[in-house]
Amino acid sequence: MISITKADGKAEFKLIHLLRSRSTEVDKRVTSAVTEIIENIKAHGDQAVRDYTVKFDGQCPDVFEVSREEINDALTDADPVFVDALLNAQANIAEFHTRQKQQSFMDAKPNGVIMGQRIRGLKRVGLYVPGGTAAYPSSVLMNAVPAKIAGVEELIMVTPPMKNGKANPDILTAAAIAGVDRIFLVGGAQAIAALAFGTASIPKVDKIVGPGNIYVATAKKQLYGTVDIDMIAGPSEILILADSTANPKFLAADMMSQAEHDKLASAILLTTEESIAQQTITELNLQVATLARKEIILESLKNFGAVIVCRSTDEMVDLANLLAPEHLEVMLENPMEYVGKLDNAGSVFLGKYSPEPLGDYYAGPNHVLPTSGTARFFSPLSVDSFIKKTSFIYYTEDALRDAHDDIVHIASKEGLTAHANSIQVRF
Amino acid sequence: MISITKADGKAEFKLIHLLRSRSTEVDKRVTSAVTEIIENIKAHGDQAVRDYTVKFDGQCPDVFEVSREEINDALTDADPVFVDALLNAQANIAEFHTRQKQQSFMDAKPNGVIMGQRIRGLKRVGLYVPGGTAAYPSSVLMNAVPAKIAGVEELIMVTPPMKNGKANPDILTAAAIAGVDRIFLVGGAQAIAALAFGTASIPKVDKIVGPGNIYVATAKKQLYGTVDIDMIAGPSEILILADSTANPKFLAADMMSQAEHDKLASAILLTTEESIAQQTITELNLQVATLARKEIILESLKNFGAVIVCRSTDEMVDLANLLAPEHLEVMLENPMEYVGKLDNAGSVFLGKYSPEPLGDYYAGPNHVLPTSGTARFFSPLSVDSFIKKTSFIYYTEDALRDAHDDIVHIASKEGLTAHANSIQVRF
Repeated sequence: MISITKADGKAEFKLIHLLRSRSTEVDKRVTSAVTEIIENIKAHGDQAVRDYTVKFDGQCPDVFEVSREEINDALTDADPVFVDALLNAQANIAEFHTRQKQQSFMDAKPNGVIMGQRIRGLKRVGLYVPGGTAAYPSSVLMNAVPAKIAGVEELIMVTPPMKNGKANPDILTAAAIAGVDRIFLVGGAQAIAALAFGTASIPKVDKIVGPGNIYVATAKKQLYGTVDIDMIAGPSEILILADSTANPKFLAADMMSQAEHDKLASAILLTTEESIAQQTITELNLQVATLARKEIILESLKNFGAVIVCRSTDEMVDLANLLAPEHLEVMLENPMEYVGKLDNAGSVFLGKYSPEPLGDYYAGPNHVLPTSGTARFFSPLSVDSFIKKTSFIYYTEDALRDAHDDIVHIASKEGLTAHANSIQVRF
Repeated sequence: MISITKADGKAEFKLIHLLRSRSTEVDKRVTSAVTEIIENIKAHGDQAVRDYTVKFDGQCPDVFEVSREEINDALTDADPVFVDALLNAQANIAEFHTRQKQQSFMDAKPNGVIMGQRIRGLKRVGLYVPGGTAAYPSSVLMNAVPAKIAGVEELIMVTPPMKNGKANPDILTAAAIAGVDRIFLVGGAQAIAALAFGTASIPKVDKIVGPGNIYVATAKKQLYGTVDIDMIAGPSEILILADSTANPKFLAADMMSQAEHDKLASAILLTTEESIAQQTITELNLQVATLARKEIILESLKNFGAVIVCRSTDEMVDLANLLAPEHLEVMLENPMEYVGKLDNAGSVFLGKYSPEPLGDYYAGPNHVLPTSGTARFFSPLSVDSFIKKTSFIYYTEDALRDAHDDIVHIASKEGLTAHANSIQVRF
């Protein structure tokens, strides 16, 4: 399965190289297929959406929009235990994200000058939800809840129809709980293009969020600028730091919870203890046998899994900061001590009882996180992802007169005499 | 120069089309030239930077980095009136941007659960400053001041050498005032690539900001993901709303302060008063004669300028929200009344004595603003542009036990048994 590597300066370098190698180039055929879809949707609107839906999903609903009745029915008919679990998760997500909300500010000075920054939710946001086995209700909550807290007026969900031509009822249930405003049964690059340009039946949005396959991701990338997008997510990853206080059973379970996502997912354990390394590998072999996605787990562990014995805790911390992982578990004695030291990570899970799936579903922080080392400069999805800011300036005649000479001087230095003129003409 | 158009539903449509038509496709030759430069810098580092600098700038300094002495000398030798103007501008910019600073938060619950969001400045940021006539000291302040307030540890400026092989002293002066940490005499796509990958002499950064020509902009776009970037700025624009209380002299001056930027810049006046429209055109003709960049102004006004007579103030507001301009001047009676109504704009200038150049240089809000209608979803450059967020979660054994059933239920619904296992294995 996985062999144990010793940190020696070279092994770490190889590891970084291995992880980065997962972000593969997009096939040119995908790129040009998506470009063609986008152009057709732009030119032919609903008719093109209809044609592509028949082509890719086998059939097309008469009306794209899912009725309010169908959404309400999904919620009413859902298993109450499932609904309760989602409601509890939603409450936690809402509580955490409400703390992220920024206020507009205004600076009204004694001389009459008023300046400020107005913060407002985006008007209309599109949320893509994949079909098939990747139709995750948790993903609906993690995208929709912060959007509504930000004040997004209209949240439009798109999702491909199931084989029976209907929407996935679990997705409808999550959407009803999260407050999604309208739902359209359209998927793929055609759904992204329809949201970006608007069609007769599908509204034009300001931003598109949510995960999707390579066609969806490529369409989002190509349409960035026409609309805003969340991020281009790469393959998922977990890094775990463990000392002698860690429990190998937990380490193995957490590595596999990441590895089961897909064959490109990466799970890496750094530990100061060779015995912990060995016991974790034993546990991996034991536990994997019981899991539904055993094949995927074994393949991703083989290709992108690693267990590395480090010479010190400092070495583990340095390596974590270099790797900038999406998920970072700290299974060290006194885990809170590391909140400040770990510079780059999407989300940090501290201690024995904070496994990564707790964050995926439930605790409150977002599970849409920067991957592939981009936590160096990107941040988790948040309320800030759904706002726009506008500055405003009101100056009085006296205040502008006081600023006159400075502005004219800088403008002249820059050779912009029309800039200077616009101040001078007022006095 | 400009003729008067009457709003009639069609004229507005044409106007939007005209503005959007400015965002032209990048020539394929530029794209592939930039790709080649990036690949060469990645493969050959400093040597490639050196070769391109000789090729594009005519010569290459022996050492790329500008010495601390040279930077200090620039500040000492600068005109004290200029230094004072920059210091006043810097103080205003710093005061405004300090208000944008978000705090890390922590939620420590009575049951021992701790969750939070840590906010930290990016470690290293690159700031591009163009050479030649577009070497603007104000641009150094607007990019560098928020970066330092955000807590960026090291701010690296790159700028092409002047014809004499030296750095532009005005740029050095502004950099010294703004607290730029290191300066390298390199320009073009090669500078962007050097910052993205790092070379023996130029440090690798996490984000690159600052304006540049089409090669610089294309390199930033291509390297997005390897590093973060600020935004892809399109041509600049101003929209002015005026009623009978507006002064045509001011309107004309402000239109031209935008039009002088470049031939693709757009200046549009909406007014309810035909007489204001006529007088503004008279003033444009009068004032333009005195301005250094007369040719540019005349060409941009001819191609992308417009004066439109609207039927009501509401119509002007609706059109402003549709156009989502970078700069929006409100020359209406009771201008503050419109702070809430104007939904989409980068920066709003309220009243007679708040001309756009006041914001470009001095008042405090940032002058790096979303262009070409992207204020619908993008925001001005801010302290938020220079931070990264990390979530953290610490759960106790009891808290996880309480959450156990909900998490396992959702994970099972999603078919992710390894996610469920990572909770179950702990109990």
